[in-house]
Amino acid sequence: MGEVYQKGKLAKKASYQLLNYTTDEKNEALLLISNQLIEEKDLIIKENKKDLQSGAENGLSTSILDRIMLDEKRIEDMASALKELVKLKDPVGEVVEEMEKENGLKIRKKTVPIGVMGMIYEARPNVTIDAASLALKTGNSIVLRGSSSAKHSNMALVNTIHRALDKSVLPRDAVQLIEDTSRETAKELFHLKEFLDVLIPRGGKGLIDTVVKEATVPVIETGAGNCHLFIDETADREMAFNISLNGKTQRPSVCNALETILIEKNWFDQYGLSLLEALHNNAVEIYGDNTVCSSFSFAKEATVEDWYTEYSALKISIKVVEDVIDAISHINTYGTKHSEAIITENKENAELFLSGVDAAAVYHNASTRFTDGFEFGYGAEIGISTQKLHARGPMGLNALTSVKYFIYGDGQVRK
Amino acid sequence: MGEVYQKGKLAKKASYQLLNYTTDEKNEALLLISNQLIEEKDLIIKENKKDLQSGAENGLSTSILDRIMLDEKRIEDMASALKELVKLKDPVGEVVEEMEKENGLKIRKKTVPIGVMGMIYEARPNVTIDAASLALKTGNSIVLRGSSSAKHSNMALVNTIHRALDKSVLPRDAVQLIEDTSRETAKELFHLKEFLDVLIPRGGKGLIDTVVKEATVPVIETGAGNCHLFIDETADREMAFNISLNGKTQRPSVCNALETILIEKNWFDQYGLSLLEALHNNAVEIYGDNTVCSSFSFAKEATVEDWYTEYSALKISIKVVEDVIDAISHINTYGTKHSEAIITENKENAELFLSGVDAAAVYHNASTRFTDGFEFGYGAEIGISTQKLHARGPMGLNALTSVKYFIYGDGQVRK
Repeated sequence: MGEVYQKGKLAKKASYQLLNYTTDEKNEALLLISNQLIEEKDLIIKENKKDLQSGAENGLSTSILDRIMLDEKRIEDMASALKELVKLKDPVGEVVEEMEKENGLKIRKKTVPIGVMGMIYEARPNVTIDAASLALKTGNSIVLRGSSSAKHSNMALVNTIHRALDKSVLPRDAVQLIEDTSRETAKELFHLKEFLDVLIPRGGKGLIDTVVKEATVPVIETGAGNCHLFIDETADREMAFNISLNGKTQRPSVCNALETILIEKNWFDQYGLSLLEALHNNAVEIYGDNTVCSSFSFAKEATVEDWYTEYSALKISIKVVEDVIDAISHINTYGTKHSEAIITENKENAELFLSGVDAAAVYHNASTRFTDGFEFGYGAEIGISTQKLHARGPMGLNALTSVKYFIYGDGQVRK
Repeated sequence: MGEVYQKGKLAKKASYQLLNYTTDEKNEALLLISNQLIEEKDLIIKENKKDLQSGAENGLSTSILDRIMLDEKRIEDMASALKELVKLKDPVGEVVEEMEKENGLKIRKKTVPIGVMGMIYEARPNVTIDAASLALKTGNSIVLRGSSSAKHSNMALVNTIHRALDKSVLPRDAVQLIEDTSRETAKELFHLKEFLDVLIPRGGKGLIDTVVKEATVPVIETGAGNCHLFIDETADREMAFNISLNGKTQRPSVCNALETILIEKNWFDQYGLSLLEALHNNAVEIYGDNTVCSSFSFAKEATVEDWYTEYSALKISIKVVEDVIDAISHINTYGTKHSEAIITENKENAELFLSGVDAAAVYHNASTRFTDGFEFGYGAEIGISTQKLHARGPMGLNALTSVKYFIYGDGQVRK
């Protein structure tokens, strides 16, 4: 049996041990990891340089190299994040339901760790610390499978974690890194049902789609955000401008950024051109429908592909629509069920939109950019789920728990 | 595009319409279905006879024919179950979290329908009514794909549902039956991510395994129950006998029935033989380890396969173990994470077992046969989930809901 099977098995065994530790013991381990990171930062930076060097040799883009790069500041940020995590409430062991039946059976439904999490991710080595610490906080083991481009960094970080765990009472086997970053090890993880209870992909659409398509281990799907703003007939002009510009330009690479603006036709007749100009003046490339293109010469023609596209860049698609029903129908056809917003002074249209649009988060008169675990006050974020089962929207620590029924009797049998 | 795509699309469209109906309107539709079933029972029985006849011609076993069979009593039972469902609380629209952020954003997390459910099931036509009614109660559309052996019955039942829905305000398209029961239509459903939000298989292990392995639509895994009883050293003799016999013989075909008994060695020395005799006298075939086989001549030797097997019949595997740790380890190796029980007077061992065994429901001094939505008081049961995500254990109506964040602002943008 190869590395994936062996490490999966060790992680599974450790997951049973993890059931026995208190919140204080888990938090102590997190603080030890935080300290160890600071202590070993030179070593981590040295190993990270190897990845940066081979990345440069392999012609990786500067933006990918920047994602891989670790410096003092970034390592200190990881260490601080661990300290913040310690302060959060332990979601494990909460009694969510309690009942006593007529036959005397006492039933208690409690939150428990999921067991073993698998995490498949790209470039960013900070995910290694992030995912491992969220797992430990919630009493889960984790099997990490990063990308080859961050291999040395990930190995250094997991070694740091192991040295810290050795000082704690928690088992070091709770955190496993698959060092072989070939396609085969990813495939093995997809099907490691014997040991993995959940698989979470973090990265681009290609990675997530592959995992969803191939994995037989249950997956939590995160990430893709083709987010829309609908500007209704009665939308406040200034609000519409602010939210459009902020949604597209403040941080275009993130999943809750705007990708399409739908504009009610009368509002478009009045303010459309100046909104297009404002976007254009902020370096946003515009892909428009016929109405948009015929009224603004800088707009390029949008294809069907554009309505489906999450640009993650300073590009936007714009369409003029009949009304709120037309907007809902467009969003439910092309959206990714992430975050959608309406600007309107008409409360009825707002409610129609919020209930009719199928998405994790729906906004009335606010920017889609707020869909985020920290903004929502969860203190941590595992990712933003775009599926409807288990967890939807920003996932806090409780997304990493399951439940279990504890039943106490005195000899009851079924009649 | 074929039947599956077309009906999936209609179900999706209907799922958006379903968002607009009140609890009363949904309940009214359920009552209309209940009445329509009674009204049309002769027609349904006539169609059911066609399935029974072709089943007999195709050599189906009497037990499968019994599962397919519908008579007045069974139809009346379905009609009554619908009336009971009406009485249950509507799980949709519940505010599960509410907060106001410093920037004035109001965030409300509410339960919503999942959208479109797919259900793939075998033989029993009562699943048609059961699944459709649970879907409608929770505001979901459903695409049903039954087996060819119950084809006429399923078509008759869905026609009855449609005639009832036509009298209600709900859209008839909310309930779709795939009439082509070839393998191809099942495969199409596995991948119909465009329209299906969840896929639930109901049937034997073969069906469930195939769905889990092949489907890219998120699956709720239900059913397989390789349940264990561990009789600890201090177990009360009478309690151990009662729970063993009840767990195995009261209804051997169900998923919460006992399949393996693990017995602590000292207890076995004292009472083992008489327990084996009691089982044998109740027509239970025994597959035992060496200790069991050498002390009881009717026992056959258990293979590794036996420890993995859910017999669903009057057969049981029995093993003598060292202690509670040994028992936990056996269960976590061979179990299906369904229901597991310990009998002991030792509270420490009980807690060790309950927390260490990885299963949806864990019992101290009670029969595993209680794992059931009705026994737990949920009033309805979609199935018993053996996975850890979304829902675990007996699933009531709220397992058919998702959540959605409704966010209200007055122009907030991200800083």
